[in-house]
Amino acid sequence: MTRSKPKTLTIAVIGGHNCSKQVEELAHNLGKNIAKVGYNLVCGGLGGVMEAVSRGCKEEGGLTIGILPGEDKKSANPFIDIVIPTGLGYTRNTLVVQTGDVVLALPGEYGTLSEIAFALVLKKPVIGIGSWDIPGVIQVKTVTQAMEKLAEILR
Amino acid sequence: MTRSKPKTLTIAVIGGHNCSKQVEELAHNLGKNIAKVGYNLVCGGLGGVMEAVSRGCKEEGGLTIGILPGEDKKSANPFIDIVIPTGLGYTRNTLVVQTGDVVLALPGEYGTLSEIAFALVLKKPVIGIGSWDIPGVIQVKTVTQAMEKLAEILR
Amino acid sequence: MTRSKPKTLTIAVIGGHNCSKQVEELAHNLGKNIAKVGYNLVCGGLGGVMEAVSRGCKEEGGLTIGILPGEDKKSANPFIDIVIPTGLGYTRNTLVVQTGDVVLALPGEYGTLSEIAFALVLKKPVIGIGSWDIPGVIQVKTVTQAMEKLAEILR
Amino acid sequence: MTRSKPKTLTIAVIGGHNCSKQVEELAHNLGKNIAKVGYNLVCGGLGGVMEAVSRGCKEEGGLTIGILPGEDKKSANPFIDIVIPTGLGYTRNTLVVQTGDVVLALPGEYGTLSEIAFALVLKKPVIGIGSWDIPGVIQVKTVTQAMEKLAEILR
Repeated sequence: MTRSKPKTLTIAVIGGHNCSKQVEELAHNLGKNIAKVGYNLVCGGLGGVMEAVSRGCKEEGGLTIGILPGEDKKSANPFIDIVIPTGLGYTRNTLVVQTGDVVLALPGEYGTLSEIAFALVLKKPVIGIGSWDIPGVIQVKTVTQAMEKLAEILR
Repeated sequence: MTRSKPKTLTIAVIGGHNCSKQVEELAHNLGKNIAKVGYNLVCGGLGGVMEAVSRGCKEEGGLTIGILPGEDKKSANPFIDIVIPTGLGYTRNTLVVQTGDVVLALPGEYGTLSEIAFALVLKKPVIGIGSWDIPGVIQVKTVTQAMEKLAEILR
Repeated sequence: MTRSKPKTLTIAVIGGHNCSKQVEELAHNLGKNIAKVGYNLVCGGLGGVMEAVSRGCKEEGGLTIGILPGEDKKSANPFIDIVIPTGLGYTRNTLVVQTGDVVLALPGEYGTLSEIAFALVLKKPVIGIGSWDIPGVIQVKTVTQAMEKLAEILR
Repeated sequence: MTRSKPKTLTIAVIGGHNCSKQVEELAHNLGKNIAKVGYNLVCGGLGGVMEAVSRGCKEEGGLTIGILPGEDKKSANPFIDIVIPTGLGYTRNTLVVQTGDVVLALPGEYGTLSEIAFALVLKKPVIGIGSWDIPGVIQVKTVTQAMEKLAEILR
């Protein structure tokens, strides 16, 4: 019998559906780094930050999970490996953060804020890069710093 | 055939499970005022702000709805008329704000923040009294001011 | 201080969105009887069986609760007093049966079957009138028999 | 840029938390076959049928997804690769069937019935092996027949 190896850690990346070119590059870079270290990625599965981080993760051979608001798997961005359609609308935000062992917040609007809040309710570590300034969020400025914090937390 | 009259408006009041004596009095006073104007009250159905506001509302003959995180109706505070058990845990927060036509936020922790964020995602008006300072929340200082804002919004 | 009186019991009535004239009359009659005995009614808040039972309940002055799949309160049928929009799609079915102290199943399709199954998972009593024939459901033939069973269970 | 390859299909396997030795062997065999054909497996992530099918799938190098009722990733059986904790209780059943492109039902109790019903609501193909006899379920007797039906449906 094959025993499963210890679970791979999963990083939740949250951020806006619409984002600037600069944030898109940040997300893309972050996705690449997450894959290089060997973590899985979970996100909301749609566009903007979600698509950029998934694309980065896939470029480095990582595994991507997308938890969708709708019922249709086809609405996932093309870089999602494991599509979880929910039909729960914005309520699915709680599932994205629950699936991450750590949450990484990029710039986003109220949906991102709801995810940060839920993560903090559940006592998940939250690292922010230019996202909402909420007490309890570990604020960093660069992807490199975020990856260092991640390593520190997950050690 | 009896036609139902136009729906009564429902106010969602959110705030901490644990709260100071001062916030409890604020919530109690708010509940009384909500009932006096003839609105229904919806809240998370448990203790702290939720219990104080429900108690105030019942004292003035209002109708109270409690949307619980758990499956057991008995966990509702004694001032809830309509108990909606969900078994959804904190995810039920999204239902509390959806059920309100306006959301009134009192002091609370991350659970309250998640409710404010969800309300703003759904473009619900949010009035804050000493709660989280998030852009988009209409900030007031007293119950009287809150009731004036409510009337203005719901006119 | 006014103490709230013991909670009014709530009956969940489930059944098809589309239904025959005969089932509509059955639902309407059931709604009237539920109100006459003084129970609240909870249902899915939309058309067919849900609308007919709500209409009957309102005609006798009962209180009706509708737990909607969508986010828009306006999609409730006109006989719902307390509208709970969820945005959860069919997943809201689990909330309808949880809110009932007893579940009354009328003819319906797979949505109704999912509600019967969830009710039985949660060990709620389920009374069926011409609905799915699932072991564990108490089968009756008439509204009178259903009301007798209800009284017996809730005694 | 690396383009993601076409999505791997995912099979939802549902069945009892408690099961006989015989059903366990059936589930284990089914899991092996699902992996051999190259499908992903999704299930409820706990014991009984869920653990046996996951174990089989891992033995053949497949990928397993477990959607848990609770909030704690550690409650997943040891053969789950991708753990989705939900905190939604039994309501998570709707997510298990939504994530599968086809649903395979083994013997189970009311939870399994709720999943069959939800799958049929969503017009997902459901193949049953010794499970609930509900109109619309494609009934087969063996794992071999189930795999043939799967291939036929997913062709």
